Amino acid sequence: MLARDIATRRVIQADHGQSLREAAGMMYRHQVTCLVVVAENAPVGLLSMRDMTKAVLLDRRDADATPVGSIMSRPPVVCREDCNLAELIAILRGSGLRRLPVVDASGQLVGIVSAHDVVAAMAELMEELAGALIVDPELDHTVPRRQAP
Amino acid sequence: MLARDIATRRVIQADHGQSLREAAGMMYRHQVTCLVVVAENAPVGLLSMRDMTKAVLLDRRDADATPVGSIMSRPPVVCREDCNLAELIAILRGSGLRRLPVVDASGQLVGIVSAHDVVAAMAELMEELAGALIVDPELDHTVPRRQAP
Repeated sequence: MLARDIATRRVIQADHGQSLREAAGMMYRHQVTCLVVVAENAPVGLLSMRDMTKAVLLDRRDADATPVGSIMSRPPVVCREDCNLAELIAILRGSGLRRLPVVDASGQLVGIVSAHDVVAAMAELMEELAGALIVDPELDHTVPRRQAP
Repeated sequence: MLARDIATRRVIQADHGQSLREAAGMMYRHQVTCLVVVAENAPVGLLSMRDMTKAVLLDRRDADATPVGSIMSRPPVVCREDCNLAELIAILRGSGLRRLPVVDASGQLVGIVSAHDVVAAMAELMEELAGALIVDPELDHTVPRRQAP
């Protein structure tokens, strides 16, 4: 399984010029806690709900006058679409992030992958493995039994 | 493994009378996205960063004048400390929540448990299982080899 196989293709994207209030509306509507800021279809930053809350509630930035681009983390940590699960876990662990934009060889955004997607992928592999380990009792009946005399 | 074994004992608690700005400060300082609102050491509500962001940025509530108690979810979904992992997963799935206050038989708060704690617990069990499945090559040397003639 590679990043491209488990990534969500539909990425909630923001423009660096949007206001924090607009970004909050997008997060709420789409039930996400992070937006990928893109320019020409390449990820240029990440805006988390945590960063946004800090800016407005603690640093008292104006939610309408502050553009996403001024508080987003950049450059964003990304992963290539051909990352395998071990590489993906290493990037998540090393960065302390919970989700990463997935890019193709030319740096174009193709999806987003989260630590939760990795948990789901590993659960799927475990289920496959359980299927391989546990013999299906039905198999006992595939060879016709000898008729009783 | 029960909820009490995997729960974090140190719960970041808020009082229902605190302002949203104070709550945001606590979330940021303690690096959490959820506060447990308590009264007489019993959980009476939950305040998530999502609810707080919605209240301030979308509903335009005043961050200093709005008390936590007016927007917290209540009563909070909780789990008993003697819940096993399967029961815990069922409550998380049924509620759509990612973390639950853990209470003792008298309803007193004893910790908080998250879906991430469950992932860590299952990984620990898998590692134990791997230890049971994979024979340690060192064991080959516990019986002294015959001396060469």
